[in-house]
Amino acid sequence: MLAMSEPIIHHRQPEFKELFRRVSENLQYLFQTNLDVYTFTSSGTGAMEAAVCNLLSAGDTALFVNGGKFGERWGQLCSAYGVKAEEIAIDWGDVVRQDKVFNMLKKFPKAKAIFVTHSETSTGVVTDVRSIANIVRKDSDAVLVVDGISSVGVLELRMDDWGIDVLLTGSQKGLMIPPGLAFLAMSDRARKLVERSHLPKYYFSLTAATKSFTDSGTPWTPAITLFVGLDVALRMIRNEGIENVWGRHERLARAIRAGCEALQLSLFTSFPSNALTAVRVPAAISAKELLKHMKDRYGITVAGGQGHLKGKIFRIAHLGFCDELDAVAVISALENALRSCGWNGSSGTLEPGAGVRAVQRELQARMSSRIA
Amino acid sequence: MLAMSEPIIHHRQPEFKELFRRVSENLQYLFQTNLDVYTFTSSGTGAMEAAVCNLLSAGDTALFVNGGKFGERWGQLCSAYGVKAEEIAIDWGDVVRQDKVFNMLKKFPKAKAIFVTHSETSTGVVTDVRSIANIVRKDSDAVLVVDGISSVGVLELRMDDWGIDVLLTGSQKGLMIPPGLAFLAMSDRARKLVERSHLPKYYFSLTAATKSFTDSGTPWTPAITLFVGLDVALRMIRNEGIENVWGRHERLARAIRAGCEALQLSLFTSFPSNALTAVRVPAAISAKELLKHMKDRYGITVAGGQGHLKGKIFRIAHLGFCDELDAVAVISALENALRSCGWNGSSGTLEPGAGVRAVQRELQARMSSRIA
Repeated sequence: MLAMSEPIIHHRQPEFKELFRRVSENLQYLFQTNLDVYTFTSSGTGAMEAAVCNLLSAGDTALFVNGGKFGERWGQLCSAYGVKAEEIAIDWGDVVRQDKVFNMLKKFPKAKAIFVTHSETSTGVVTDVRSIANIVRKDSDAVLVVDGISSVGVLELRMDDWGIDVLLTGSQKGLMIPPGLAFLAMSDRARKLVERSHLPKYYFSLTAATKSFTDSGTPWTPAITLFVGLDVALRMIRNEGIENVWGRHERLARAIRAGCEALQLSLFTSFPSNALTAVRVPAAISAKELLKHMKDRYGITVAGGQGHLKGKIFRIAHLGFCDELDAVAVISALENALRSCGWNGSSGTLEPGAGVRAVQRELQARMSSRIA
Repeated sequence: MLAMSEPIIHHRQPEFKELFRRVSENLQYLFQTNLDVYTFTSSGTGAMEAAVCNLLSAGDTALFVNGGKFGERWGQLCSAYGVKAEEIAIDWGDVVRQDKVFNMLKKFPKAKAIFVTHSETSTGVVTDVRSIANIVRKDSDAVLVVDGISSVGVLELRMDDWGIDVLLTGSQKGLMIPPGLAFLAMSDRARKLVERSHLPKYYFSLTAATKSFTDSGTPWTPAITLFVGLDVALRMIRNEGIENVWGRHERLARAIRAGCEALQLSLFTSFPSNALTAVRVPAAISAKELLKHMKDRYGITVAGGQGHLKGKIFRIAHLGFCDELDAVAVISALENALRSCGWNGSSGTLEPGAGVRAVQRELQARMSSRIA
């Protein structure tokens, strides 16, 4: 945050170009790719739109996995551009099965792209992108587009090794900086589609992005201060090591899930992402009151449910700039807030400290396994 | 800058909504409008694209004034969306004449919109938007769209009084904060076009922006830290008073133009914007060397020319967070840099201090006129 408050540099000057090159190289490390990673000044949705309007043409068919608000967005984006979007619908909280993807690819052999959300932020579900990539590559001509908004820099994700054609993310999740930048890389297979696409685009044109990239810049004025922060964040990730970053998120996620279960709460999904934990709100408790208590008393912002899950679940984020003590803190605050709302466990007896004890156990178990 | 480095708030929480409402009201003051002002996380080009893809449909006719790189962009945007863009071409450095606008409106009575750049950053030319608005309202059914990227918060501009249908700007010029946000307001006439537009859009949808605005937010995650900075900047503008802000820019611009002329340099245009001063590079001097000297020796970034003006002009920005002593400083640095490059005036004799003396005179003349 402080790096971003330094006097601003100009984006057509050598200092910025140097920064841009360093950032671009570290973004390749983050994406685990040798492909160029393009940056947009937008939210992650902007990069999603870039994928749709650059890869496809009106009348094309595409598939999308819809198991939550962000999967749904792929369908809305395709519709906005006149792309026939065939839905692979799954219940919110459930995960897409590989045979469903395989069958849809067989049913729509002309589908040019398949859109998948790696970590669905609205439900806390993680999708097995690696297996899906395998199916897509083996059994179809479609390109695989992965929304990695809450997964890049959080969950294991290897763009080149796994054969992902388009990977995109935003700045405010695993990258730890404020929102305002989005990133996208594409394979040569995807680039061939870009060359043939007839959909209108300008600000999100990947052709323009590619052209400016060779001159170490962006086609339009970028959010310069966020680039400066990004530079710092990427160096932190590089210093920690991407596998260690993934490992840290796994430890935190396991600890927080253990904490919630020890508080006799029920997790919303059996396929939990290590980015966030979605938890069912006990029937006797008001979600609104619970979240307000955590916010007002402890300064911790926990998100509610979206769409039809409003009031039904809450979602604890544990991605980005988080460490083990944050896991202890959030479960401590949650336990106290639950108690204030009258929760005494589904069993009717909840021992004080049950949550944080479970967190400690989980953290220590993984600690010793690392030493051993 | 420091306000933006404070711990981040969440954009779906009450604190942000309160900030959003305050910022939105102050943006109305800035635009001199009672209309809602929508915010995009993008560069100014994003707001330009929003104007095109929300107001028009494929096959529509629109007019655009092209007297520089940013006027040209309107034509490119229209072409990208299949809108027939009829050009009102003017030489770079020249200004559009009212009769030309009038004649084109008569020639293309079905034109749905006319796009005009208020302050053309590539040439330093200011366009008389007020008179053009008058013609457009009186003599056509077209809506007037004004690119106010380097003019809002810099030059006198009264959206409602002058009858501008769509006004847009970016965050990094008159608003004094880093790039990454863009703003757009539209009249009811423009909104009728939005309702009928059939062009694809999603991220830049004004319908989505309008819907989220009623809930004090944006449809997609906004660049939150820039909003926080914007709040501070808008309060500064409000405290200074918008007429005083315009007046300050006029004083600075006059002083800098006087300084350049006293250095026996020739201004690029006879219609200078108070946002920046474009100056011809004397034939004997290398623009690159001159700008490098100012940057390396004085830390002052002066922009070169764009397109065919590369190496022919340089452009001194004096908009946003600038005061009278900045005007003295830039002319002092310029004079010294010119001297180092071997410039001794077009006359062959240039008295040391000629530039800053002219700046002082101009500043003092305006100072006493204010006291009197």
